[in-house]
Amino acid sequence: MDYKSSGVDIDAGHETVRRIKALARSTFTPGVLSDIGSFGGLFRLDAGRFADPVLVASADGVGTKLKVAFMAGRHDTVGEDLVNHCVNDILVQGARPLFFLDYLATGRLAPEVAEQVVAGISRGCRANLCALLGGETAEMPGFYAAGEYDLAGFIVGAVERRHVIDGTELAAGDLLVGLPSSGLHTNGYSLARRILFETLGLGVDSRVPELGTTVGAALLAVHRSYLPVIEPLLAEPGLVRGLAHITGGGITDNLPRIFPAGIGAIIDRRAWEVPPLFRFLWRAGGVPADDMYRTFNMGIGLLVACRADAVDRVLDLLRDRGETARVVGRLVAGDRVVTYTD
Amino acid sequence: MDYKSSGVDIDAGHETVRRIKALARSTFTPGVLSDIGSFGGLFRLDAGRFADPVLVASADGVGTKLKVAFMAGRHDTVGEDLVNHCVNDILVQGARPLFFLDYLATGRLAPEVAEQVVAGISRGCRANLCALLGGETAEMPGFYAAGEYDLAGFIVGAVERRHVIDGTELAAGDLLVGLPSSGLHTNGYSLARRILFETLGLGVDSRVPELGTTVGAALLAVHRSYLPVIEPLLAEPGLVRGLAHITGGGITDNLPRIFPAGIGAIIDRRAWEVPPLFRFLWRAGGVPADDMYRTFNMGIGLLVACRADAVDRVLDLLRDRGETARVVGRLVAGDRVVTYTD
Repeated sequence: MDYKSSGVDIDAGHETVRRIKALARSTFTPGVLSDIGSFGGLFRLDAGRFADPVLVASADGVGTKLKVAFMAGRHDTVGEDLVNHCVNDILVQGARPLFFLDYLATGRLAPEVAEQVVAGISRGCRANLCALLGGETAEMPGFYAAGEYDLAGFIVGAVERRHVIDGTELAAGDLLVGLPSSGLHTNGYSLARRILFETLGLGVDSRVPELGTTVGAALLAVHRSYLPVIEPLLAEPGLVRGLAHITGGGITDNLPRIFPAGIGAIIDRRAWEVPPLFRFLWRAGGVPADDMYRTFNMGIGLLVACRADAVDRVLDLLRDRGETARVVGRLVAGDRVVTYTD
Repeated sequence: MDYKSSGVDIDAGHETVRRIKALARSTFTPGVLSDIGSFGGLFRLDAGRFADPVLVASADGVGTKLKVAFMAGRHDTVGEDLVNHCVNDILVQGARPLFFLDYLATGRLAPEVAEQVVAGISRGCRANLCALLGGETAEMPGFYAAGEYDLAGFIVGAVERRHVIDGTELAAGDLLVGLPSSGLHTNGYSLARRILFETLGLGVDSRVPELGTTVGAALLAVHRSYLPVIEPLLAEPGLVRGLAHITGGGITDNLPRIFPAGIGAIIDRRAWEVPPLFRFLWRAGGVPADDMYRTFNMGIGLLVACRADAVDRVLDLLRDRGETARVVGRLVAGDRVVTYTD
């Protein structure tokens, strides 16, 4: 009896490492000092860039969006979802990405699938100038169904300490600017899948006229990174007082995460049009409105909070980058609760 | 239809966050600037401590050791395994830990199980002076069997650039000092489980005389951290020329990871006694010797490479810390291959 007969193929692991090395190298930025395959990845922090560097780190997964990727046999987008999700999670504290690591776990490792997953991760890393510094590919017989895997990511970025955005300066009267999402991003897939595949009996290849595309394409739309459009705002310290990434829990649960005590928000739902995919899910699932706004991003993937007298500058900078940004609400005295007006 | 009926319980997620917040806070070191629950964890790098800081990062999982934890209903040790594994993976480059993040994925989140897992992570973090800065608990219906979960960890440490240990100075004639492992650590569990549970039909509660304990206790022995015993060596820059953490792939595959071109190693297998658990698995599984040494750590969890004239100092420092360290091999001219002598 040897290790391969017990379901673990060390040679397949080596083959996977070989395939992903070239992909990872394509993401390397000048800070990277090590190659893929070392015990730990080495990244030189350019200490000259920071007087008082704060590292900002986040861990995330893709959730059951992975199930849609399995159904569609498409493995090269979920990695980009993951990177962008992580990039946004540290961006909202004012940080730019330094490096990323992934964890890819399967029942039996298929090198070509791992390669596609890492190709997506690498694409996301390159677009965000974030080095893919390392990762773990784990073969765990009996943990995952055939052809399935789980994927987690870990990002580290940096920000000058006095430029950390933590919401402590937020005050009643501040305005909230909403930026469009590119789809469900990586949240709400368990509910969306249930409505589309179980209730409606659709498949990934089903074309839905309201969506203008197939179910699979609509669901796999890549979670966008807000780094390119938010960077010009961060270049003007003090302009942005708070940033909220709208992930699991929707606006309802995510916006209050950045509130200091005594602050709440009013969101005007007339301020933007909920995209067709969300409306389709809403109607087809008969989902209560409260649950929709606590599960899905409803078309707003990032909220920017700023002083009322700074909002024109914020909107100008965003529109310069091609964003269809708009004011969708305001901060009020409150108990860290979001109220909606229709 | 709402999100909970689709298998995801946001309230259970919040309850889990509440339970683990106190645990995470118990690990906080002075560098931590954020609380658990923020989008990204904030860690202030004490720039005054480093002239040229290099960040060292690693991602790892626990592998199918988790299956043993499920069988034993014991969830408070795998987190410590994970932290120590990660600590060792950056220690071998000379880095001390700064912070850790976890990824815990389940089919349906049981807050009390998540709490036990995080209790183990927190214990490991405290022992290594490593802050648990954040993490992700993902509820993924349909991904994991009832009562099962996957667990991954990400660590970031730091080392002064001129003190990075990367093996480039290794030369023929250097000696290899072996440090005992505390069990299988986190590797080889698929093979070990097959031999013990399938071939021999044992259970986690079976007592095995040769092991002096139950199968479950022997398999769940915690992966040790080598940080406390290696730190005194790192305090003398140049003393250690290379460090290899013996993980999946055994000495055979892990030691060469630190070799420069033109270097190989000879390991004298008579230099240490293979512990009973490995001998038991070897015999009961009829596993070829090559596979044993390429799958399990065989009783050596860390290898320290140093100049021959420095080995007495290395051994003294290790023995001062109570280690039963011994010379187990030497470097030779070679092609990054380990040869064993018996």
